Amino acid sequence: MSSLRETTLARAALSRLFEPSDAVGLALVSIAGPVDALRIARRDIAAGRDLTSQLCSALDVEPARSNLLTDGLARWSPRLRDLAPARDLATLERLGGRLVVPESTEWPHSLDDLQGSAPLCLWVRGHSRIPESSCIAALVGSRDSTNYGASVTADMASGLSSRGYTIVSGGAYGIDAQAHRAALAVAGVDSEAGGPPATIAVLACGVDRYYPAGNEDLLRTIVQRGLLISEVPPGSSPTRWRFLQRNRIIAALSAVTVVIEARWRSGALNTAHHAAGLGRPVGAVPGSVHSANSAGCHRLLRDGTAVCTTDAADVAELAGPLGTDPFGDRVREESAPRKDHDGLTIPDLLLLDALPVRAWTTVDKLAQVAGLSAKEVVSGLTRLEIEGLARKTSEGWRREKK
Amino acid sequence: MSSLRETTLARAALSRLFEPSDAVGLALVSIAGPVDALRIARRDIAAGRDLTSQLCSALDVEPARSNLLTDGLARWSPRLRDLAPARDLATLERLGGRLVVPESTEWPHSLDDLQGSAPLCLWVRGHSRIPESSCIAALVGSRDSTNYGASVTADMASGLSSRGYTIVSGGAYGIDAQAHRAALAVAGVDSEAGGPPATIAVLACGVDRYYPAGNEDLLRTIVQRGLLISEVPPGSSPTRWRFLQRNRIIAALSAVTVVIEARWRSGALNTAHHAAGLGRPVGAVPGSVHSANSAGCHRLLRDGTAVCTTDAADVAELAGPLGTDPFGDRVREESAPRKDHDGLTIPDLLLLDALPVRAWTTVDKLAQVAGLSAKEVVSGLTRLEIEGLARKTSEGWRREKK
Repeated sequence: MSSLRETTLARAALSRLFEPSDAVGLALVSIAGPVDALRIARRDIAAGRDLTSQLCSALDVEPARSNLLTDGLARWSPRLRDLAPARDLATLERLGGRLVVPESTEWPHSLDDLQGSAPLCLWVRGHSRIPESSCIAALVGSRDSTNYGASVTADMASGLSSRGYTIVSGGAYGIDAQAHRAALAVAGVDSEAGGPPATIAVLACGVDRYYPAGNEDLLRTIVQRGLLISEVPPGSSPTRWRFLQRNRIIAALSAVTVVIEARWRSGALNTAHHAAGLGRPVGAVPGSVHSANSAGCHRLLRDGTAVCTTDAADVAELAGPLGTDPFGDRVREESAPRKDHDGLTIPDLLLLDALPVRAWTTVDKLAQVAGLSAKEVVSGLTRLEIEGLARKTSEGWRREKK
Repeated sequence: MSSLRETTLARAALSRLFEPSDAVGLALVSIAGPVDALRIARRDIAAGRDLTSQLCSALDVEPARSNLLTDGLARWSPRLRDLAPARDLATLERLGGRLVVPESTEWPHSLDDLQGSAPLCLWVRGHSRIPESSCIAALVGSRDSTNYGASVTADMASGLSSRGYTIVSGGAYGIDAQAHRAALAVAGVDSEAGGPPATIAVLACGVDRYYPAGNEDLLRTIVQRGLLISEVPPGSSPTRWRFLQRNRIIAALSAVTVVIEARWRSGALNTAHHAAGLGRPVGAVPGSVHSANSAGCHRLLRDGTAVCTTDAADVAELAGPLGTDPFGDRVREESAPRKDHDGLTIPDLLLLDALPVRAWTTVDKLAQVAGLSAKEVVSGLTRLEIEGLARKTSEGWRREKK
């Protein structure tokens, strides 16, 4: 049995050898364990024929024609010479960070839903612990967001933060940055001391890098009051593949993923599809049909991937219960002005519309106009009179405006 | 067996006696036929005990405690004295109209889907025949529409008209009027001569009335080049009940119903729910989450009643096939600019991102940076070179911008 230190070192090393979601590498770890997987990758121990057949079975590949492991070893070997996991961990510690591995108590088990593509480990900077996924909402979207997108993001992130959600996003320009900022603004400085992180940025590069450069101040603030997370080790550059794979971590960490603005083709849609693939609820914010920045959201709504979400309450409802919602039930329905005819039965509605506003009329005439029996008219007039909607004088009946 | 004239007269009379969707009245007609139903309503012939039990069974009511027919007779009798169906039909003819009854060939059988609440007849003004429901799209929405709603309505109605759809709406201010106008504009004056109607307005009042008054010119134009339709006879006023019931006819006539703008509580939602209840596809146009006029649309999207529709192509797709779409397939996907990395395999994508733009590098270095074997790098570089994405000189490899 390997010690936690040994396991941690092995996972740190493997996270440099393997690109994210290297299916063969991850299957090797799940079969041999991280310590032996590293030894095999380093060719310190030979892989038996038994291992190859286990790999083939794990990856659902014909054993006879497979050279999965040979190809893997060829892929990993160019990176062996620079392997220095102890140095990487020391770098991380110097930055106030820690490596969170599946064997440690802080591991977010929501990532296990990724099954064969769960990350090997998380390189984490920041003081707080990673919250339960039920308390995390992902807000993602275009880098080239509009004022509309920025305003919706700010409202949604603030509303969700106030409800106790930690906002996860990708640390990019546009919607991501706006989501992080609004979450930081609501959480206030209390989040420095012990509480849940104000916000989490999941990066496609190492957590020692502030990318994109224009977000350096924001990312530094997140280190102080939230968390920076990455599955690639310090020094790693962001590449397209790592951006795409990073999205699966955002989706898997969160109870709900909301796309606020996205073009017809946008990385945010990739995050949404990861979330949907995990069976997690996905929201999309509607916008103008004339805005190219909403076309991707409308696409998600149209194809049924996402549910229409217009505010934080919609998102919280989609995410499911999170203790008591301090904002209570939706007020939208009540905010619609109550109308005179609300709650009337059909005969009373017919009667109300038959009552003249500026003249007086009789029960017989009302019966004819409304299409009701005289009996229905008489009883209906009594009810409308009580409601203050009908008035009787010696001249007859008339409608009364409330 | 009653003659068509006799049946037509009876239905004309009954459409004045009964309010729209009078369940007992309509059941009576379906059991006894329109001519005898009228005789029973006039008390010219007595209704047997057998009829009452048939009525109870048709309406799924306990026979023992039912006085359905007695109540119905009491409800209808105040209107008997003014009954003059021959005069009503003469009025309609003078206006260039005709009564379309289920027994006539022009009857739109899509209305039969309303089952127990199908209208008794349609009072119709205009030259063209009512088209097949597969060629009809309903566009509905708020009376107090915004510029955004008006612009989307115009685009959608034009696009659908160009595709051969007749636009149905309710003749009201706002979205309805805009939909009628855009349809008339596209259809051009050809629609006067024999073709399908440019647009159909289904009214909650008699077709002799131009309601609302501000739409008089529009409604007059629709009489010339489209159709005005109502289930209530000439002279009838629009009432809330008739507006609500009118909506079921709009929904039933159409292959698809689209709500363009609607407040949280809006009559247009009622039309949408009628359409959904009939199993017809419903579309809703997204808009700003800050616009109260889109809140009803978002509500329909959120609760799954409606599908997100952003343009005429979306609506046509939802309505189902209507011959050949002259506008062909969606161009939206192609309109997104093609990117260098489109269609690359994952290893080639990793390799592309590992290639430096401003320096030269080696196969070994590329293998290490990309996380690929040397063999994969060599074959990948060949492919990228052919694609014009990589360049080789004596100094090594470099990324080439297309």
